[in-house]
Amino acid sequence: MEQKFNVVGKRLPKVDAWERVSGKARYASDVYLPGMLYGKILRSPYPHARIINIDISKAKALPGVKAIITPKDTPTFRWHKDMPILTDVARFQGDDIAAVVAVDEERAAEAIELIKVEYEVLPFVLDPEEAMKPEAPKIHPEGNIIGGKPQVLKRGDIEKGFQEAEVILENTYRTSLLQHVTSEPRVCVAHWEGGRLTIWDSTQYTFGVQSGVAKALKLPMSKVRVICEFMGGGFGDKTTSERYNVLAAFLSMKTGRPVRIEFDRAENFLAAHHRYPTVWYLKYGAKKDGTLVAIYAKVIADMGGYAHFAGAGGNLETIKSVYRCPNLMAEGFSVYTNKPEGGFMRCVGHPQAQYPQEVHMDMLAERLGMDPVEFRLKNFARLEDGDQDRKFPFTSNGLEDCIKRGAELFRWQEKWRRPGSSPGPLKRGVGMAIHACRHGAMTEPSSGMVRVNADGTVNVLTGTSDIGGGQKRTMAIIAAEELGVPVDAVYVTAADTEVTTDTGGTTGSRQTMTGGTGVRLAAADAKRQILKIAAQELKTEPDKLEIKNSIVYPIGADKGIPLVDVLKKAPATIVGRGIGRVPKNKVIHSFAAHFVEVEVDVTTGQVRILRLVAAHDVGRAINLQSLENQIEGGAIQGMGFGLLEEQLFDGKTGLCLNPNVLDYKLMTIKDVPEIKPLIVESNDPYGPFGAKGVGEPPYSVPAPAIANAIYNATGVRFNKIPISVRAILEGLKTKKG
Amino acid sequence: MEQKFNVVGKRLPKVDAWERVSGKARYASDVYLPGMLYGKILRSPYPHARIINIDISKAKALPGVKAIITPKDTPTFRWHKDMPILTDVARFQGDDIAAVVAVDEERAAEAIELIKVEYEVLPFVLDPEEAMKPEAPKIHPEGNIIGGKPQVLKRGDIEKGFQEAEVILENTYRTSLLQHVTSEPRVCVAHWEGGRLTIWDSTQYTFGVQSGVAKALKLPMSKVRVICEFMGGGFGDKTTSERYNVLAAFLSMKTGRPVRIEFDRAENFLAAHHRYPTVWYLKYGAKKDGTLVAIYAKVIADMGGYAHFAGAGGNLETIKSVYRCPNLMAEGFSVYTNKPEGGFMRCVGHPQAQYPQEVHMDMLAERLGMDPVEFRLKNFARLEDGDQDRKFPFTSNGLEDCIKRGAELFRWQEKWRRPGSSPGPLKRGVGMAIHACRHGAMTEPSSGMVRVNADGTVNVLTGTSDIGGGQKRTMAIIAAEELGVPVDAVYVTAADTEVTTDTGGTTGSRQTMTGGTGVRLAAADAKRQILKIAAQELKTEPDKLEIKNSIVYPIGADKGIPLVDVLKKAPATIVGRGIGRVPKNKVIHSFAAHFVEVEVDVTTGQVRILRLVAAHDVGRAINLQSLENQIEGGAIQGMGFGLLEEQLFDGKTGLCLNPNVLDYKLMTIKDVPEIKPLIVESNDPYGPFGAKGVGEPPYSVPAPAIANAIYNATGVRFNKIPISVRAILEGLKTKKG
Repeated sequence: MEQKFNVVGKRLPKVDAWERVSGKARYASDVYLPGMLYGKILRSPYPHARIINIDISKAKALPGVKAIITPKDTPTFRWHKDMPILTDVARFQGDDIAAVVAVDEERAAEAIELIKVEYEVLPFVLDPEEAMKPEAPKIHPEGNIIGGKPQVLKRGDIEKGFQEAEVILENTYRTSLLQHVTSEPRVCVAHWEGGRLTIWDSTQYTFGVQSGVAKALKLPMSKVRVICEFMGGGFGDKTTSERYNVLAAFLSMKTGRPVRIEFDRAENFLAAHHRYPTVWYLKYGAKKDGTLVAIYAKVIADMGGYAHFAGAGGNLETIKSVYRCPNLMAEGFSVYTNKPEGGFMRCVGHPQAQYPQEVHMDMLAERLGMDPVEFRLKNFARLEDGDQDRKFPFTSNGLEDCIKRGAELFRWQEKWRRPGSSPGPLKRGVGMAIHACRHGAMTEPSSGMVRVNADGTVNVLTGTSDIGGGQKRTMAIIAAEELGVPVDAVYVTAADTEVTTDTGGTTGSRQTMTGGTGVRLAAADAKRQILKIAAQELKTEPDKLEIKNSIVYPIGADKGIPLVDVLKKAPATIVGRGIGRVPKNKVIHSFAAHFVEVEVDVTTGQVRILRLVAAHDVGRAINLQSLENQIEGGAIQGMGFGLLEEQLFDGKTGLCLNPNVLDYKLMTIKDVPEIKPLIVESNDPYGPFGAKGVGEPPYSVPAPAIANAIYNATGVRFNKIPISVRAILEGLKTKKG
Repeated sequence: MEQKFNVVGKRLPKVDAWERVSGKARYASDVYLPGMLYGKILRSPYPHARIINIDISKAKALPGVKAIITPKDTPTFRWHKDMPILTDVARFQGDDIAAVVAVDEERAAEAIELIKVEYEVLPFVLDPEEAMKPEAPKIHPEGNIIGGKPQVLKRGDIEKGFQEAEVILENTYRTSLLQHVTSEPRVCVAHWEGGRLTIWDSTQYTFGVQSGVAKALKLPMSKVRVICEFMGGGFGDKTTSERYNVLAAFLSMKTGRPVRIEFDRAENFLAAHHRYPTVWYLKYGAKKDGTLVAIYAKVIADMGGYAHFAGAGGNLETIKSVYRCPNLMAEGFSVYTNKPEGGFMRCVGHPQAQYPQEVHMDMLAERLGMDPVEFRLKNFARLEDGDQDRKFPFTSNGLEDCIKRGAELFRWQEKWRRPGSSPGPLKRGVGMAIHACRHGAMTEPSSGMVRVNADGTVNVLTGTSDIGGGQKRTMAIIAAEELGVPVDAVYVTAADTEVTTDTGGTTGSRQTMTGGTGVRLAAADAKRQILKIAAQELKTEPDKLEIKNSIVYPIGADKGIPLVDVLKKAPATIVGRGIGRVPKNKVIHSFAAHFVEVEVDVTTGQVRILRLVAAHDVGRAINLQSLENQIEGGAIQGMGFGLLEEQLFDGKTGLCLNPNVLDYKLMTIKDVPEIKPLIVESNDPYGPFGAKGVGEPPYSVPAPAIANAIYNATGVRFNKIPISVRAILEGLKTKKG
């Protein structure tokens, strides 16, 4: 049955587009308070060193310096067990050792210079495979394998699977260390006043910052307020409370004045989070007809100096979901090295897995003599597959449509040619990759509030941070659709912990489904109250009424009473609240298939991406504008993952060679090809109006599609990304040689 | 049955005491925004004049002037039918004619000077009795009696009442024109940005400002946010949206920059609201045994140039409530004059009525040869009296206790002496007065929200403005008591229209009962949700559980589960909401009796108040500290009403002679006697934990009690307040003569 919508599916600008483009938007980095102090962090110049002594006497004597703290002065709270707020053992270049506040930034920077730290430089290890060896320098006392052993997934009988297999393919792959490079680096202002802390933070998750800071400083949550009005990019780097939040808060409590801590670009490259590098060994087995019968994967995830999370587990999630396969075994080691801290980056770790798996599948298709599309259509996980271990179906699955409609739009049949058959020197090739992941799904808590004003206009109160993805507009559309009011009557207040409710972070592509469900249920709750009053007025039952364009009608009638008149009968402002629940024994996933054409200049090694078709199952398009923007933005960033982005480290010193946006290469608008988003609406029964999220999936798919297209163009396989100009030239040389 | 409370009834400081005394509190007058412009209003120098022409050319040419508006440029919206936003007929000295915004205050003031207005000066009228005459200058086209006729109240048969009466007493009384003289004059900052208006206003009712400005400027309420974090005194002057709010908003929309408008002290004296003067004729009849049988009252309320409301109706409310009397007639004329606009001031108009009635009752007691206390105890309105016209009882009534316990504490029997019998020149005397009024009662909307955080701490979201009376602390106590958590775990967010719900203004002594009921019901709603989860855990019924000190116990048990553990089982943050309803066919009133001793220096005319016992039926003391502060503050202001405060006007020019705090006399701390608050707890069944409000009642009672005490000391009656030094000396002279 086709649903008809008033607002859902339209193409609307962001609610705050004007503020964003006019410079009026107040980002955390725009918060300047009277009497504010400026904080700076003293960071380790070594990748691994013990701090023997810290002499702050000269720094303290500098006029304008208001406080200096070292490890002994800070709360004993630790993040993820192994990370102190300030450390006396530096585990990566940039590790936090001391902090200063002063009346201006220059003074604070000067004070940092004046602090004399005596270091015992320790041997370091950069390579995760090296770090696993017994003789490697120990970064934490319990050894370099986080948790002491691998995470293991098993399904069916992997031995039997490989026995049944008629074709078996093994290969190794590597992905690199990337930074999010948000327009706005990490920044917060903390203000302790009247026994209460207010933090303006550039964060994807105000409630995460609130609870983390409250715990670290032993404060009641009711007296910690975290606000993020606007934020300049997160991509997973700003998903929860971090050391700098606690430092700013602690220093504000110590000095009684507002304290600002803002990372510069180099600090963000060294001491913020990173897409952690991975090393893969894959061994897949298939029957001659193309049926996958065995998947074995091993990953080593290089988490850097601290265990923000066990990243290998994040990598393996997607390996087990994309394809139907009865026998699977996957092992993941999360390993400490003396590199920057690994974390989330546009997904917990699926892109690092999607690249090797989809290249591997491409190779396997070739080995089987099958078309890559045909091979995927044979093996992709169906609606009923879902969680193949626990036998839970998906709630919706548009993957087949993504593959078929994407291939058609791309004209795959016509475009595909035998690998390496393109004439030079500008060789063209096409490639594709598919995607499935739990991101875009609903999680708990899912909540929202809606207030209907006396004039029939609506305020939405949601914990959802709008991190630039247009989440406020999405929530406004959902509330307007549910309540039957014009979308411009809705104003959305977001991500202020004092006045909204926790609905998870704007992470994991979560908010359309999670925050959106909270808002939709809250709007439905408000509507119920309104219709109850209207039913008394109209002497009918509430379920025989509907609201359209701010008028309450008996269903199907063409005369009704204005909403504003119904509201006059309400004893007080109508407040709706909603709490969404995750369905049990079912799995919500989002799906995608990308198709790309590239041109490789074999004389220069330059790769030009010519066009990309990005087919995504989003359940339902709430706002076409922001949906397409998300797909485009994610795909562009994913192209950088495949071709350009990599933080490089010097093997002799362990220091980062390119902590700046000149030497760290990013996609620019000149590199961006024509991108065609293709929207597949599988109408998820648990999403608001059928919607699922789409924040992360577009990132995962371009890199393997591009790698496959480069192979299709050149006949050369690249087993590491980014596939740089140097890698191309070397690869072509090797092939010739 | 005695209730036991954990927090209710304790003596706690204001939650924001530190911020208030340290200067950290951000009042509307502390709001300075980047790029802000300063607005000034051109005010009429005449009490009555027609504007013939306005020449803005010179003002416009002044560098730094960003906009000038005159009556023709403003929205056509009118307040209470007769008041335009800018006027082309000035109806009082200070009437708003034009407005300017400039880059600083000095430039704005200079621009005001440069605007040339051509006036046709019109004849004016200052005296309300004169204004009622046919030949008086017409201030509005429909004549000077607002509504064209008096408001009339009738009960029983007034003719028959006077026929039955054995003693009849007639007299006339006058009260004067007062200003609230708030520490913080009227001030707001309006900021139009991204299609949305934010106003920081010094207001008692953010929602009133929101709806008024939204209506005036035809904006959706969802896009008008009004915030009042702290405010420096309201007393009824800041109860709703005013011209300056709309002017600031309109000028911000016009210029695209934040606009600040702040009244100076003289502007507040001229163009803010006022306690409107009244003229009374009273005729009361009683039987010889002291039984009141007839009340006739006539009042002329002088509302000034615009009809903010029909003030005579406000005056008459209390006349009919305080005493049980079967026959009553009251007539009230609300009249325009060319004086400043009358409005609410610590009550709608009861103090102006309480003074004549209680002096009249004192005289009648003397005529009957009865003790004034005995006479009141004979006639005061009992629990069953309530609305004597509609035969609705009071919900609670502690008036008898107020009179009896107050008299006892004061040692009335011992102190009272025959009028005029005190030896000179320092004559001592005692007086008393009683009070009953609908203020302190509950009204609709009554609403609130409560959020219980994951750590068991609580955020209260209430529309209640904390105007300095400690309302935030009151709400925190109510939430803490209901939820069984420590009061320090509660943080109260108040009076931000975006994130709270309308629960009426902090006017009419409303918020303890009205906002408090909303918060209590919201907390109860949250508690219900918590106990439901706990009951599942403890395998019992929710109603067999209670929360004490953040632990959920089976009722009576000494072992329970921590609230924080119960909350872990909640699917999302617990949000409670509450809507209170006013009881039907019942009347909620607050009651008081004051007893005062004065010393009159018959050589200088100086009156010294020696001590005051202020007995108040508050239903239940929520916070003893703020309760006693309210009683003391109200009583002190009420003493000024009786002895000092009066705006004076020159009969020849119609201009105010003392629009400043040097010439307008206020009580100072040196004038304040020992005040003994006596708390009577009648435990109102509809109040939160039995509480009623107390904001206004303490103001009404001192003036008549003092007037009666002065009579008791000197033997001279004064029929007009304030009873100034000059009045005392003249009165004593007349008596001797």
